[in-house]
Amino acid sequence: MTTRPRLSQCGLSAGKRARLHRILHQHGLGNGTALFLPYDQGLEHGPRDFFPDPAAADPRYIIKLALEGGFNGIAVQIGLAEKFYWDYAGEVPLILKLNGKTDIPSDRDALSPLHASVEDAVRLGADAVGYTLYVGSPAQVPDYGQLHEVRRDAQRFGMPLVVWAYPRGAAIEQKGGKDSFYAVHYAARVASELGADVVKVNFPHPEKQQDVPDPYHTAFTAQQAMDAVVRAANRTLVLVSGGSRAGDEAMLEKAEESMAAGATGLIFGRNVWQREHGASLRLVEQLRQILAKYPTTPKV
Amino acid sequence: MTTRPRLSQCGLSAGKRARLHRILHQHGLGNGTALFLPYDQGLEHGPRDFFPDPAAADPRYIIKLALEGGFNGIAVQIGLAEKFYWDYAGEVPLILKLNGKTDIPSDRDALSPLHASVEDAVRLGADAVGYTLYVGSPAQVPDYGQLHEVRRDAQRFGMPLVVWAYPRGAAIEQKGGKDSFYAVHYAARVASELGADVVKVNFPHPEKQQDVPDPYHTAFTAQQAMDAVVRAANRTLVLVSGGSRAGDEAMLEKAEESMAAGATGLIFGRNVWQREHGASLRLVEQLRQILAKYPTTPKV
Amino acid sequence: MTTRPRLSQCGLSAGKRARLHRILHQHGLGNGTALFLPYDQGLEHGPRDFFPDPAAADPRYIIKLALEGGFNGIAVQIGLAEKFYWDYAGEVPLILKLNGKTDIPSDRDALSPLHASVEDAVRLGADAVGYTLYVGSPAQVPDYGQLHEVRRDAQRFGMPLVVWAYPRGAAIEQKGGKDSFYAVHYAARVASELGADVVKVNFPHPEKQQDVPDPYHTAFTAQQAMDAVVRAANRTLVLVSGGSRAGDEAMLEKAEESMAAGATGLIFGRNVWQREHGASLRLVEQLRQILAKYPTTPKV
Amino acid sequence: MTTRPRLSQCGLSAGKRARLHRILHQHGLGNGTALFLPYDQGLEHGPRDFFPDPAAADPRYIIKLALEGGFNGIAVQIGLAEKFYWDYAGEVPLILKLNGKTDIPSDRDALSPLHASVEDAVRLGADAVGYTLYVGSPAQVPDYGQLHEVRRDAQRFGMPLVVWAYPRGAAIEQKGGKDSFYAVHYAARVASELGADVVKVNFPHPEKQQDVPDPYHTAFTAQQAMDAVVRAANRTLVLVSGGSRAGDEAMLEKAEESMAAGATGLIFGRNVWQREHGASLRLVEQLRQILAKYPTTPKV
Amino acid sequence: MTTRPRLSQCGLSAGKRARLHRILHQHGLGNGTALFLPYDQGLEHGPRDFFPDPAAADPRYIIKLALEGGFNGIAVQIGLAEKFYWDYAGEVPLILKLNGKTDIPSDRDALSPLHASVEDAVRLGADAVGYTLYVGSPAQVPDYGQLHEVRRDAQRFGMPLVVWAYPRGAAIEQKGGKDSFYAVHYAARVASELGADVVKVNFPHPEKQQDVPDPYHTAFTAQQAMDAVVRAANRTLVLVSGGSRAGDEAMLEKAEESMAAGATGLIFGRNVWQREHGASLRLVEQLRQILAKYPTTPKV
Repeated sequence: MTTRPRLSQCGLSAGKRARLHRILHQHGLGNGTALFLPYDQGLEHGPRDFFPDPAAADPRYIIKLALEGGFNGIAVQIGLAEKFYWDYAGEVPLILKLNGKTDIPSDRDALSPLHASVEDAVRLGADAVGYTLYVGSPAQVPDYGQLHEVRRDAQRFGMPLVVWAYPRGAAIEQKGGKDSFYAVHYAARVASELGADVVKVNFPHPEKQQDVPDPYHTAFTAQQAMDAVVRAANRTLVLVSGGSRAGDEAMLEKAEESMAAGATGLIFGRNVWQREHGASLRLVEQLRQILAKYPTTPKV
Repeated sequence: MTTRPRLSQCGLSAGKRARLHRILHQHGLGNGTALFLPYDQGLEHGPRDFFPDPAAADPRYIIKLALEGGFNGIAVQIGLAEKFYWDYAGEVPLILKLNGKTDIPSDRDALSPLHASVEDAVRLGADAVGYTLYVGSPAQVPDYGQLHEVRRDAQRFGMPLVVWAYPRGAAIEQKGGKDSFYAVHYAARVASELGADVVKVNFPHPEKQQDVPDPYHTAFTAQQAMDAVVRAANRTLVLVSGGSRAGDEAMLEKAEESMAAGATGLIFGRNVWQREHGASLRLVEQLRQILAKYPTTPKV
Repeated sequence: MTTRPRLSQCGLSAGKRARLHRILHQHGLGNGTALFLPYDQGLEHGPRDFFPDPAAADPRYIIKLALEGGFNGIAVQIGLAEKFYWDYAGEVPLILKLNGKTDIPSDRDALSPLHASVEDAVRLGADAVGYTLYVGSPAQVPDYGQLHEVRRDAQRFGMPLVVWAYPRGAAIEQKGGKDSFYAVHYAARVASELGADVVKVNFPHPEKQQDVPDPYHTAFTAQQAMDAVVRAANRTLVLVSGGSRAGDEAMLEKAEESMAAGATGLIFGRNVWQREHGASLRLVEQLRQILAKYPTTPKV
Repeated sequence: MTTRPRLSQCGLSAGKRARLHRILHQHGLGNGTALFLPYDQGLEHGPRDFFPDPAAADPRYIIKLALEGGFNGIAVQIGLAEKFYWDYAGEVPLILKLNGKTDIPSDRDALSPLHASVEDAVRLGADAVGYTLYVGSPAQVPDYGQLHEVRRDAQRFGMPLVVWAYPRGAAIEQKGGKDSFYAVHYAARVASELGADVVKVNFPHPEKQQDVPDPYHTAFTAQQAMDAVVRAANRTLVLVSGGSRAGDEAMLEKAEESMAAGATGLIFGRNVWQREHGASLRLVEQLRQILAKYPTTPKV
Repeated sequence: MTTRPRLSQCGLSAGKRARLHRILHQHGLGNGTALFLPYDQGLEHGPRDFFPDPAAADPRYIIKLALEGGFNGIAVQIGLAEKFYWDYAGEVPLILKLNGKTDIPSDRDALSPLHASVEDAVRLGADAVGYTLYVGSPAQVPDYGQLHEVRRDAQRFGMPLVVWAYPRGAAIEQKGGKDSFYAVHYAARVASELGADVVKVNFPHPEKQQDVPDPYHTAFTAQQAMDAVVRAANRTLVLVSGGSRAGDEAMLEKAEESMAAGATGLIFGRNVWQREHGASLRLVEQLRQILAKYPTTPKV
């Protein structure tokens, strides 16, 4: 188990700290944990993701769900932010996602193109920006170049930088796949080393040992793996992703393990809104009960 | 009496609206009114303003007072923001004051030089910027030039612009002085016409009729004058200033009249902190009771 | 008496903190105090200041004196920095003075023109920049404009900003003169409000009460006045200037009072080098004995 | 054997000289030699490098180790610098590593993408920047382009440029591999020719003669090879890398040969921190004893 | 007497040193001294200066005179440089004068406007730029601003900066006039402090004591005054100006005293070309005989 970092310990500028304070201590449970609602799947996978509950195709429905469910923020692309956020501006924090792509071409050389800027986020009153980094992709040169630009502007404007750290690409596939402990562990560290303030990771699977480097050929429990991921991220706050919709029991167990490991929060999208409204809110309530057990103060 | 404008009625961009929403609906009483604590007197008048209560010379004391008193924001210059806000970042909204001056040279050609930028405000996580406009000053050409730059950047970054609209300078002295109804009325309108989102005015004195233009040679009540000032500002939200320390009864009456007229809030500095701590908090409580009577929702 | 601020309390960026740490904790006594050697008098007053000891006309002599005397830094203009610092680069910290002027024209509208940039300081390996602000001068508009530019670049590059806060100009002369308690007190506060990390002030004279504002018509002791100046500067570190050469006894007493008040250090030029070499070093030794009594750690 | 270059002989600007003076003469042994602690392996190889001693996964542990061990500096990526250096700013010199990559994709066309800037280094108070150049890589065109940008900015800001000169890529593998005398010798020269102030090389292996060009098919001793590498670098100061953890005896012998050859210092990471704390400090003490035998003054 | 500084002692960048080396060691006598031919009088005083010898109105005549006389360089404004230098480019070094003015308006607030750039000088193949600074003028704010720009660009491009340091303006007139020892002494120092590589001064007159500050009310010999001026300039090379045409004997004596004092050379215009061609060359020969007595090597 790792201690969850306080905002006062992370070397944050006043602006980054003010915005993270608002997210973590003035929304959601206000106890230093976070529950985010990501809504970029319409770009990343296409509208087929809305077939389970067609209401979810409407961004307005999602924002209202975030308000009703007491989320700490929503993460959307620039187009939906422009068209829908103005009417709820300030009611729920906005994480403006600055890059994204379709899943139509192959992911061998995965790279998520930048299509918005930190200045867009400032202009819209967002409290953070999001960037997807494909750790291990052969396209790491342009990927780091994009991230450099985003990090520089985020520093300049005091805007927290949330990195979606996703192992991806042909080399990852050859070394055990994107959700191995090896891959997730490495991804968390890369985000921290390259300047993320917050990192979003998938839950690591230590049992996937085929083709991974030697040191990972050991019996780690799921909890041990999650602990190591949080330690690798050090002073970068960790968010654990729900990923594609899975069984609720397993998912709640993962959420609990994540928070026990020292994660700051959860970022659950499809698991939440790929069911009807009442069921969504009931799941959110279960997640909030977990978060309520892990309060953190802003200062030590 | 005038109706207080809702944020949804003011043609605000998403960023300005998000930031004003935070100030008006997530701090203080959270009812759409505002009570601000201005703390730029150390620059404007010098540290002699702290002689009545020496504790007030310490910016940390003031920020804590703002937190204890449940203020909607504090207004300070860049130096104090850099040195003191980081440790309270996000706990109370920051209005970064972008210009200011000492009162040592003559005010005949009053001009308050710009010494910080809207980008500084973004970087520090501020929720608004403040600019002092000396309405009627012979230096209005450079004054409007500075305001032009600030308004342009505030628009670019979605940062609300609060204009301290102060009649000042030799010509104002020749036309009835800086707190006549004529002067305050005109100042409120100028701020609105030049692009203020919020305007800070002093309470107008309709009884000061000497040398003012003819139309003001009529018997207006204090309430009628205040109503007219708020109407002149139209969709620019009005804050009424406490000015130098005055008797509490008179001051509370003015506060009541201001809110009745449709002002959005009050900005009281010396009246608050030029007394010992307990007395400060008791006065704040009285002001909050007034504000509680004038709730506004963000949308109609 | 006021507590001397620690570097960890001042909201400094990593760069400003690193550079001030070097100055305060890795040079001089290394105990968090500072003794600086300013050497801009050749510009400010002309080479006549070197008549008492002609050796002092040679900048190389001064740098060596700073090394022998164990100073925490030297403050020079760009020309001498370019021509002399390279050969001693890194041996003693450099404060690059960015503005300066001759004393040939009148000081009525005093303004010290900018003739070098923060980028020059970075390029030369300086650990701070210096700016002379003429508090109260009728030229405060261009003065604040210059300071704005310097502060912005100092923030961008993580370079500590030392403000020489000098009351000056016609209005100050009419309000009691440049070394009254009123004037020095106000000047310290202005520097802090406008963003100085360190402020250089002259010793305040509370006995000069003629023409100063009312609140200063009280019997303050020299120590009380100095205490108030340090409090007015709050988290801006205070350096007390030696000014023109005075009697050693009086000067040492002032130095002691300054440190007792919570000043961080002393900046003594003419008092040091307007005497022969051995006498200079003996005086420096006396100043160091005072500083040795007031150690500060970088963290609380 | 080659004479170690003095700072006064290297054509350095004042800023580069000041910063190198601090590193070489005011930290570590202060005798002109250097012992650096590199800590970029979490990015370059992933957190599996911390499995031997899990404490080493925490950057704070590493900074404290650098302070306890009396290192001349630490080399980290931007993310760890932002999150951890602020609290130790100035206590130990920082080399900000400006590029880096994971080892997940193939190294055939090795290129280490730039993800931070010289201006970041200035802002953080760093005393040098680091750049990894993959000498011989098919990607040398973009690699030189990146280095051009870094060198230009390093010159502009007076920031010393440390080049990690690593032979790498498919062509190097075909010509004898990355640690042959041929490859290391060539790499040292390339760094010097392209503008490095300091070059980090691996120890050359003259016995690896397969596939290397003819002139290297001669019996060179290890010492002769190291001498030649230092001569090839001429006025570029040489640091010898520890590389992956090896036997202590062999490593200390290499360190001794390097210093005898005229290297300025050592840069040892995994060899130091891939063991428990006490053992780390004991090894450091042995390295310091070697360095103590090779003092250099800043001026001839 | 002062020792003439060597180029290797002055902290010069490679570019400045290369260009000064060409001027001082590859033209004229090649012995480290300099004789310059200034030809900006057509702008400064108007073509009336050419009445004594009408041939001198033709810039081509002047360039040929510089070649025949073995001068180290000519100093002209941009217009003449563009129209005449191309045909002799490289034959004699060019000092491009970047500012200048007519003598038609009053000199009370003297300021010499910039009308060309350092980049023009680079483009034309010049080996130095010249800037006239009116020391003591009430216009010192814009004057220092212009010089700041020129110095910055000269540093960037490695172009030597020659400052014509002229005491001028109302305040100078009130303090003893422009050629007093006080004024010339101060002017030399100001140029050095503000970053001149070379300073052009007039010969100081210690006998002019009326209205000058006290320390100058002493009996200095002409030689003592000149010595002090060179010392005040420290590592800024000194050129002594001929000024308006004077008696040859007196002028040669001043030249001798200047060189004896440690000046690097002479800059004589009207004294040279306000006589017919043969007489000009005879005078030049006498000046060269003086310079031949004061050789300097580039390195110590």
